[in-house]
Amino acid sequence: MSRASAGPEIERLIALLAKLPGLGPRSARRAALHLLGKRDVLMHPLAEALSDAAHKINPCSTCGNLDVTDPCTVCAAPARLETSICVVETVGDLWALERARAFKGRYHVLGGVLSALDGIRPEDLSIAKLIERANHPEVTEIVLALNATVDGQTTAHFLADKLEPAGVSVTSLARGVPVGGELDYLDDGTLTAAFKSRSTV
Amino acid sequence: MSRASAGPEIERLIALLAKLPGLGPRSARRAALHLLGKRDVLMHPLAEALSDAAHKINPCSTCGNLDVTDPCTVCAAPARLETSICVVETVGDLWALERARAFKGRYHVLGGVLSALDGIRPEDLSIAKLIERANHPEVTEIVLALNATVDGQTTAHFLADKLEPAGVSVTSLARGVPVGGELDYLDDGTLTAAFKSRSTV
Repeated sequence: MSRASAGPEIERLIALLAKLPGLGPRSARRAALHLLGKRDVLMHPLAEALSDAAHKINPCSTCGNLDVTDPCTVCAAPARLETSICVVETVGDLWALERARAFKGRYHVLGGVLSALDGIRPEDLSIAKLIERANHPEVTEIVLALNATVDGQTTAHFLADKLEPAGVSVTSLARGVPVGGELDYLDDGTLTAAFKSRSTV
Repeated sequence: MSRASAGPEIERLIALLAKLPGLGPRSARRAALHLLGKRDVLMHPLAEALSDAAHKINPCSTCGNLDVTDPCTVCAAPARLETSICVVETVGDLWALERARAFKGRYHVLGGVLSALDGIRPEDLSIAKLIERANHPEVTEIVLALNATVDGQTTAHFLADKLEPAGVSVTSLARGVPVGGELDYLDDGTLTAAFKSRSTV
């Protein structure tokens, strides 16, 4: 259907759907048609869920996690260790660690990593808040769980420097062969790191 | 984040997004985070656009196209030929033909094709309405623009039989090499059809 005759309502819906990561103009059109064919079970509920989530879910003022409560469920959980804070780039990374049940402490969402290319400077990230939290007397360890990219590692070194005055131990995730990973498909850097950190069986 | 602590609002949003064609559970999570990071420019407008489209857009009672008006813009356009009706499987196919400006007549959306496997019988499709339209005195040609699948072709033969009493000419789209297509990548059926229907240059 030509731009004009599809109607502005459909065109607007398609244009907005096309802005979602993973959907392009063609798949957005397919999604819009799919939605129009399932109004009651999908389209209306999705509109409500979007509006509901947009109103209720906000960043936690302590750690930056997204939740309906502030402080968020993780920050408010009395069972979680207050001694350890895990620093992640995004809320998505936090969710990944929580799904893996990999960590029992608190989190801190940095909001990205330093990047000369993208013009992201220290003041664009939640670094001041992290240093403030690291200075609390109960905090003894900061785990830097940043992505193993150049920018992620630059940021990790920057944070390690900044956190030194707080007198906490700053650690980072181990490098090595992923579980289920085949050596043949791994890059040289990972293999070298896995060799360096080898352990007795 | 574990199921419980991500909050039911986020989980519900992710579950609904994952039902869109082209998005799985992982990309739905990414989309939800993307949306929560762009509330004002994307999340609220998308919720509105969904609700707006769900309320305003309905199938045309004549042809089955989706539009805000009934009859739809195509059926109501006085400039379009009333002599020719193009039968398509879905509204998406209708839009594709309209984008290509391939046809200047009216359309008829069948709503699928006959399929023994999926249990789709003639009464599940908009066939009675098509025969009624074909019997209008001004209609002289029915173009069957169904997909070149086994089910599509079975349906085309079924429709040609059913349309015979109406005394209209029933045609179907040409088979051949797609524009820009490379022979080496085409299947035998297409090549054979293209040879059979060859024309002088």
